[in-house]
Amino acid sequence: MSSVWGNKLKVSVFGESHGKAIGAVIDGFPAGFQIDFEKILTEMKRRAPGNDEFSTTRKEEDFPNILSGVTNDITNGFPLCAVIENAAKRSSDYESLKNSPRPGHADYTATVKYNGFADMRGGGHFSGRLTAPIVFAGALCKQYLESKGIYISAKILEIHGEKVNIHEEILKAKSDGDSVGGIIECVATGVKAGIGEPMFYSLESAISSFVFSVPAVKGIEFGAGFGVAKLKGSECNDEFMIENGEVKTKTNNSGGILGGISNGMPIVFRVAMKPTPSIYMEQNSINLVEMKECKLNIKGRHDPCIVPRAVPVIEAACAIAILDLML
Amino acid sequence: MSSVWGNKLKVSVFGESHGKAIGAVIDGFPAGFQIDFEKILTEMKRRAPGNDEFSTTRKEEDFPNILSGVTNDITNGFPLCAVIENAAKRSSDYESLKNSPRPGHADYTATVKYNGFADMRGGGHFSGRLTAPIVFAGALCKQYLESKGIYISAKILEIHGEKVNIHEEILKAKSDGDSVGGIIECVATGVKAGIGEPMFYSLESAISSFVFSVPAVKGIEFGAGFGVAKLKGSECNDEFMIENGEVKTKTNNSGGILGGISNGMPIVFRVAMKPTPSIYMEQNSINLVEMKECKLNIKGRHDPCIVPRAVPVIEAACAIAILDLML
Amino acid sequence: MSSVWGNKLKVSVFGESHGKAIGAVIDGFPAGFQIDFEKILTEMKRRAPGNDEFSTTRKEEDFPNILSGVTNDITNGFPLCAVIENAAKRSSDYESLKNSPRPGHADYTATVKYNGFADMRGGGHFSGRLTAPIVFAGALCKQYLESKGIYISAKILEIHGEKVNIHEEILKAKSDGDSVGGIIECVATGVKAGIGEPMFYSLESAISSFVFSVPAVKGIEFGAGFGVAKLKGSECNDEFMIENGEVKTKTNNSGGILGGISNGMPIVFRVAMKPTPSIYMEQNSINLVEMKECKLNIKGRHDPCIVPRAVPVIEAACAIAILDLML
Amino acid sequence: MSSVWGNKLKVSVFGESHGKAIGAVIDGFPAGFQIDFEKILTEMKRRAPGNDEFSTTRKEEDFPNILSGVTNDITNGFPLCAVIENAAKRSSDYESLKNSPRPGHADYTATVKYNGFADMRGGGHFSGRLTAPIVFAGALCKQYLESKGIYISAKILEIHGEKVNIHEEILKAKSDGDSVGGIIECVATGVKAGIGEPMFYSLESAISSFVFSVPAVKGIEFGAGFGVAKLKGSECNDEFMIENGEVKTKTNNSGGILGGISNGMPIVFRVAMKPTPSIYMEQNSINLVEMKECKLNIKGRHDPCIVPRAVPVIEAACAIAILDLML
Repeated sequence: MSSVWGNKLKVSVFGESHGKAIGAVIDGFPAGFQIDFEKILTEMKRRAPGNDEFSTTRKEEDFPNILSGVTNDITNGFPLCAVIENAAKRSSDYESLKNSPRPGHADYTATVKYNGFADMRGGGHFSGRLTAPIVFAGALCKQYLESKGIYISAKILEIHGEKVNIHEEILKAKSDGDSVGGIIECVATGVKAGIGEPMFYSLESAISSFVFSVPAVKGIEFGAGFGVAKLKGSECNDEFMIENGEVKTKTNNSGGILGGISNGMPIVFRVAMKPTPSIYMEQNSINLVEMKECKLNIKGRHDPCIVPRAVPVIEAACAIAILDLML
Repeated sequence: MSSVWGNKLKVSVFGESHGKAIGAVIDGFPAGFQIDFEKILTEMKRRAPGNDEFSTTRKEEDFPNILSGVTNDITNGFPLCAVIENAAKRSSDYESLKNSPRPGHADYTATVKYNGFADMRGGGHFSGRLTAPIVFAGALCKQYLESKGIYISAKILEIHGEKVNIHEEILKAKSDGDSVGGIIECVATGVKAGIGEPMFYSLESAISSFVFSVPAVKGIEFGAGFGVAKLKGSECNDEFMIENGEVKTKTNNSGGILGGISNGMPIVFRVAMKPTPSIYMEQNSINLVEMKECKLNIKGRHDPCIVPRAVPVIEAACAIAILDLML
Repeated sequence: MSSVWGNKLKVSVFGESHGKAIGAVIDGFPAGFQIDFEKILTEMKRRAPGNDEFSTTRKEEDFPNILSGVTNDITNGFPLCAVIENAAKRSSDYESLKNSPRPGHADYTATVKYNGFADMRGGGHFSGRLTAPIVFAGALCKQYLESKGIYISAKILEIHGEKVNIHEEILKAKSDGDSVGGIIECVATGVKAGIGEPMFYSLESAISSFVFSVPAVKGIEFGAGFGVAKLKGSECNDEFMIENGEVKTKTNNSGGILGGISNGMPIVFRVAMKPTPSIYMEQNSINLVEMKECKLNIKGRHDPCIVPRAVPVIEAACAIAILDLML
Repeated sequence: MSSVWGNKLKVSVFGESHGKAIGAVIDGFPAGFQIDFEKILTEMKRRAPGNDEFSTTRKEEDFPNILSGVTNDITNGFPLCAVIENAAKRSSDYESLKNSPRPGHADYTATVKYNGFADMRGGGHFSGRLTAPIVFAGALCKQYLESKGIYISAKILEIHGEKVNIHEEILKAKSDGDSVGGIIECVATGVKAGIGEPMFYSLESAISSFVFSVPAVKGIEFGAGFGVAKLKGSECNDEFMIENGEVKTKTNNSGGILGGISNGMPIVFRVAMKPTPSIYMEQNSINLVEMKECKLNIKGRHDPCIVPRAVPVIEAACAIAILDLML
């Protein structure tokens, strides 16, 4: 029940980080859309590790092999399956963690839920690696939305509380064997008024339900977000105006959403991401077999900050949610 | 598609604020549970208007008439329908707004989406009044969860940025003809480890998708929330320990959720609510028929701050989401 | 999970035959459709008991009280809830059956599934009475489809194997204290080619999944149906032709459906309905408390043949399924 | 929306007969189940072509490559993806059919629905080849159900109206360049009473909605099926009895289902399958480009009777539907 998302556009994600392959099946994508595969690869690379000095040194090809749903680079209306092989798995890294859950990770909760059968090497189905098929699906949706004049773009707003010297915060965490979190802001322009459903399938509900499937996300806010709690109605209300014959609002505290439905202004939201839980500093944990406390030292290769690689993932979440509501 | 929520427990909400009645159908609630109807009424009163000097003077009975699903106060396993009559409707209040959308309201987006057929008197299906059936459904779920040792409780954390003199902030807004927003914190204790699904139906996804159906919510954060962006991994990670033979974490920055699944610690989240958009101060709007700008003066009775009445609604959202994941 | 049907049009049915009321919530019905309420009442009467000498003498008003979703007889795009009161309930009829399940009824299976908490007086949520809200929902959908040129009509094909003297078969069963079953054929004309999804949400899947929610249905067949098993490909294939510039088939063994998708020919299906299980003849049953065999004599008022009253129910199932696939 | 089926167990089928590969993602399968892969291959072979003199001479390996969800032959609780390569595709066979839809096939309806973008070579996503991943998913479910004492078995009941000399009917059709249909009966034993939901997710609804996704199925009936239309209530009702301390019925006209819920007796249903529409005899069709009538001669390799290969597919449909309702 858990790994399928959407109503009219259904995205089914599968795979574990140390299994044979990961991938996605996308059902309900419109027929007749010409895919620019190079552009998809560019999106995949934005998320892939090893692009810069911050991210892990693992080399993953992350090449999506499209098995169905596309004929001569044009979507044919049938479910589109893309498979990405797991080339760089090194499962020995996980052996020492088997009985000692890593703080901040899903190790413990997965062990309880799946009675120890879950393949948690490298994070298993909970691994950040599973965002690769999400980026693939999102890249497809973004291309389609762009053909309708909708553009989605996310950026880092701050890292470890710092808005300017962001690079330095990450490098410092890296040299300390520690990690840092941050905030990403995502904007979608060109969404016409009227997208979204009232009550339970509002734009906010759709976007947030998908965004919280991205590992490390701990908060989301739309428009003025948590800032609304400090505003008066007379400050927070976005007054309507007419500009070039179109209805606009003078401010955009609503983040482009009123009553769960787009109002034609840019859709704006921010996402808080926690620091990578895998750090090189010794931590306290427990041994689940002996049920006693122990020390834990995590080895392997880990990003000191996952936020840069998460930027295209947040864009993907936004694109998939908006397309599902538009179809 | 929009007004039905849930997988194993399906909640179907219907009604407009100025129609005959509003209500909910709850499908999938366990059979054989003895309902305490007085306790449900107490929850309804927490949300109802007119309880204190802050809220609107409308008198609504908000009595839920249970039509099905319960026999001799015991759930019988079939869909439970409860209907709440709309006694206090005064639709004349809305006439002057028909062509001029209120800033911060769904008037404009609903007009675009429903081509003017939506009954938007008093907010229609978007009205805060529709949270009454949600509170009813939540009260049922809360009772059931309590029988399993799970307790859900929300409180106001701040109003207009103020954590202590909260009353004064509301009274001042009232006397100014303005309104104020705030933050609510909700805690669920007693949820055992293992509740929630990986990927797309995580505890965060389920709770947030429901919470964003509550009017005026613009943000949600779990555990340390947006604060994680300022933390290092060594600070943010909740180290495991054993207490009285049970697995706990020393801190609870995760808000009781790891990898989308409960870890046995209290589930904690905060919700940001914007100021009531209906204020008595003159605002700029537009006339949609003449497509020109105009002045808008809202009449009728409106809460200067909706946050106090939203507290049981947030609890309801939490209870419904957790029960759906537990069944 | 059980009492909500549909994807784009969601129908939520609630109520037990001896509870306060029964009804339906219809979510996703298009906004702006002018309802002919008299026509809906006519449909309700086609299903209601007491219309002729065959059906039970119970008098039920079956008046659908529309609580939401309609303003001035025009659908407003929000969920439409209709409630039908249970006026004629006489629960004493059921007392003697409490521990002895009636052959052919859901008494036994409901007792096992709901641990005895199900309110099974008069059939409870399994009662044929629950087809009243289905007919209401179907009447709405039929009206809408007619505005699009789609007409749905069902008729009795045979009763107790007899195609001509159908009345006599029912009267004979009535005088014997017995009951008889029959076959209904339903035809939908005007459905354009292209409606239905491949694989799991074909026209046949959608119609059959709804039709099997109608009590007493034990079989469904499309077009030539079970007859195809006796045909050769050269006989069964419907050859294409062009008539007045439109694509048609010379025969309609496919029942208007190829690959799960409408081909523009009339959609044709037949439904087999078993004899009413409540008969006045003594039957063998068991006492579930004492776990021993016993004799059972059913009292109360029962139709000797439910097929005539099921005709509008089958039409409703067809209309709801087709509209869901068309939206 | 179309190629995902199920509630607690979700099966997502993808692929076209002449694309790179076909496959399925199975989400919600219980963790910790030891898979017998050889047994799965045996099931795959039952469906594969070329096993006997009746079926097409195409050689397809149909080897399911499991990419995820299984670790050391034990299910790990995560989505299980299996991919089957398309080795034997020969798309030239389809070229001549491009503009002339084959009678009885989805060519025409798919062309209308997908505006010509659907890849219909060899049937595309509508091809009988897509039943291979269904058999794979069903084989998994059957193994799991067997571990719970539930056995599912289907057999051919008749071919072209003949119950005994079934072989001869197929051979005669083959030598004539024609094809024949038939009836399959499927029985599930060991299903305990209480499985299935009332109203819209009854056992009959679940099974029939899946069964109608199998190409060529035109009818389904449970228990006495269409025969109930010829019975009296006193004949059709299955009287209860107690046998070895267990509740049974003396007959099984209900097919093991009362009120949509299993009663503990064997679940029995029959499925009517039409003759393979691809025959070697010349047929009348139309040219969709020129919009005029034409003659059609189908080449390639085609089964004179698909019924024998459909037997494991019907078992799979039954297994998947029952498991989804049991979880």
